[in-house]
Amino acid sequence: MPRLSELDELVVVLVRPRNPLNIGAAARAMSNFGAHRLRLVNAYAPGFREARSAVGASDLLNHAEEYKTLAEAVADCALVVGTTAVRNRVLQQPVQRLDEQAGKTIRRQLQSARVAVLFGSEKIGLTNRDFSHCHWLLNIPTSQENISMNLGQAVAVCLYELARIEVEQSDPQPPVSEDEKPATAGTTEQITDGLLEALRMSGYVKPGTEAMFEKKARRLILHFKLQAYDAKLLLGMVRQIVWKLRQADKR
Amino acid sequence: MPRLSELDELVVVLVRPRNPLNIGAAARAMSNFGAHRLRLVNAYAPGFREARSAVGASDLLNHAEEYKTLAEAVADCALVVGTTAVRNRVLQQPVQRLDEQAGKTIRRQLQSARVAVLFGSEKIGLTNRDFSHCHWLLNIPTSQENISMNLGQAVAVCLYELARIEVEQSDPQPPVSEDEKPATAGTTEQITDGLLEALRMSGYVKPGTEAMFEKKARRLILHFKLQAYDAKLLLGMVRQIVWKLRQADKR
Repeated sequence: MPRLSELDELVVVLVRPRNPLNIGAAARAMSNFGAHRLRLVNAYAPGFREARSAVGASDLLNHAEEYKTLAEAVADCALVVGTTAVRNRVLQQPVQRLDEQAGKTIRRQLQSARVAVLFGSEKIGLTNRDFSHCHWLLNIPTSQENISMNLGQAVAVCLYELARIEVEQSDPQPPVSEDEKPATAGTTEQITDGLLEALRMSGYVKPGTEAMFEKKARRLILHFKLQAYDAKLLLGMVRQIVWKLRQADKR
Repeated sequence: MPRLSELDELVVVLVRPRNPLNIGAAARAMSNFGAHRLRLVNAYAPGFREARSAVGASDLLNHAEEYKTLAEAVADCALVVGTTAVRNRVLQQPVQRLDEQAGKTIRRQLQSARVAVLFGSEKIGLTNRDFSHCHWLLNIPTSQENISMNLGQAVAVCLYELARIEVEQSDPQPPVSEDEKPATAGTTEQITDGLLEALRMSGYVKPGTEAMFEKKARRLILHFKLQAYDAKLLLGMVRQIVWKLRQADKR
């Protein structure tokens, strides 16, 4: 199984975040997807304090760096990308969709340099001034009905996509256990026989219709595309039912 | 620019959710990515009430459906997929990664039938009993450092991926007859019930092992991947057998 790519050189920048829950959620998503560098620009101080003191606040949150200006926060990054909910905004910067070029471009850049991805405040997002720090803008494609994403969720989706991309090599198939191998035709036929017997004994198959039901039952069992383990299990069940029906008949 | 796919037939099922913020966040992510059907199983009532009364609670949240059991919540779905944080869990069900086959499989199924994706409670996720209702399990690939995702973020990431994928339109699917459509979870559950009844009456299930056999039988029937016609046929067979066993018991 391919391992998740490392997002070591990725810097997540929250610009003017207010809600401690959102700051915590961003940090949690980062640790889910292997990103470590969290920076905050002009965070609302009580909110940040509260996020840090929350139960289970991560190491990552405790090591978050605070900056007064966006310029300082991205100073060591070779690529700065702002996020925007608006797709066709009339802007100086080009907008790329996360699922098209944006993710790949960022990942390629990360191989040799540090990249900052900026997320704006919950209310107004990034300003045009913030955008002016960006090489280009990134848009998460959403339904037109509701383009405004929750901050923590937007961070999670971006990081998922960035972590996902490298993972495109094909997986070697894991070896299949005996139980998972397809059942043999012999076993499926035994199941079919048992089922037919049970159906005859319970009066489902009327005299004269045996031939039709035999085909019908066999086709049914084949459709199951049974694995070896399941076939053994089913055969045992069917046989027990047949046994019970016979007992009942004898009485 | 490819447009977002419609996730009209997708059902997001939250199983035993507690935190109103998470329920609200799941609903918000759904509206971001064009999914509309939210169902809750055994939701913590005060949490759900609070989520509904929150400012800006969406229409989607107000139309969310509540169920007492998972079986009822997925009864009209042809494919039921559980989410799990654990990748190599020792489970009966196969686990697929969201970024590999899982997303494509779900999207393809959505073209002809309803699909349920289940998310467990914040604390313990989905139980083995919940899993026994699932055809297979879905894993969001995460860093090994922290595999546990926030509920709302997990929903957002799954829906982003499902909306993102371009399902090959090149070969138009031939129209599928009603008989060939996948059986609904409701019908397969009826078959499971009947099989269990037959197994109980024939002494295959010993007292005290009911719970284990319930999961085992449900999983077995799910493995059959029944088409609607076959499911109807099998249900009739099972019911007749049960009827006969009852007759026998009476004597």
